[in-house]
Amino acid sequence: MIQFCSHCGHTVVFETPPGDNLPRHVCPACGHIHYENPRLIVGCIATWEDRILLCKRAIEPRLGYWTLPAGFMENGESTAAAARRETLEEAGADPLIGPPFAMISIPHISQIHLFYLGQLANGEYAAGEESLAVGLYREEEIPWQELSFRSVHFCLERFLDDRRKGHYQFHEQVFGPDGCY
Amino acid sequence: MIQFCSHCGHTVVFETPPGDNLPRHVCPACGHIHYENPRLIVGCIATWEDRILLCKRAIEPRLGYWTLPAGFMENGESTAAAARRETLEEAGADPLIGPPFAMISIPHISQIHLFYLGQLANGEYAAGEESLAVGLYREEEIPWQELSFRSVHFCLERFLDDRRKGHYQFHEQVFGPDGCY
Repeated sequence: MIQFCSHCGHTVVFETPPGDNLPRHVCPACGHIHYENPRLIVGCIATWEDRILLCKRAIEPRLGYWTLPAGFMENGESTAAAARRETLEEAGADPLIGPPFAMISIPHISQIHLFYLGQLANGEYAAGEESLAVGLYREEEIPWQELSFRSVHFCLERFLDDRRKGHYQFHEQVFGPDGCY
Repeated sequence: MIQFCSHCGHTVVFETPPGDNLPRHVCPACGHIHYENPRLIVGCIATWEDRILLCKRAIEPRLGYWTLPAGFMENGESTAAAARRETLEEAGADPLIGPPFAMISIPHISQIHLFYLGQLANGEYAAGEESLAVGLYREEEIPWQELSFRSVHFCLERFLDDRRKGHYQFHEQVFGPDGCY
């Protein structure tokens, strides 16, 4: 929660600025408006031969559960560069980033999860600081009961389905607190 | 620029937190880390018959230039809901939101521009507070020399090209400071 102005240190108020239609944290001293916006989490479905790269999380939330490499996009990078960086950082593998594969809005936590397809040049990987373990998994080896997030489950299902069909589409989805809509 | 902690009001320092690899604005008093992330601008290529909905901007930047309805995504909404809201707010028209059409990363300003296709039920519109004028334009009427942003130009070009081909694809692009890459 924003309580103090990041520009001048004064206590902020929560009110709708003139010309706006939503309340914001506004500084009554210097006038600065503190906008808060959804964050993009970008990741990669990186494959080598018929296997998918998964990471066991070393950090909360969902410590110990399996995830696709993904994380908060940083200022100054493109979405594809973020997907590559996260795969490098979490899984020690450098994917050739392909097309965007899935975009999932999660309004109740103000996040958008964006996943790219990626191809690895070889079967090498190494767990990064945020991973307890990393592995390349065949379809029948995926730990479905130990996946970290609903968006990871969604991506893996859609990916395997598209792979069977021999054609990868771009998938858009919205997750509500209690299901998809 | 962040100079004061939004949680406790103390002066922040700019340093790399333990376990991180980028410098952040960190509060030495309460420990709060002020992450800054790219922002999503979401808009709509809304059409009625063979015409495209364009708005003449009433606000800076690019006041007086023509744009597709678009704006900063708000917390608590989906990307498609943001596209619909912006079209309602800026152009007084309620589109049936279709598939995502284009996603453009602009790393040097830490923005991602995302545009949906949208269909209008009729030819009605009304300029909102952020628009000087709104109109439905045929291809030959588009004011190419008076467009507001490069992403708008990109979307209109790709849209018209796809329409001629009879098939709409999802377009991904990265804009650098001096061109596309």
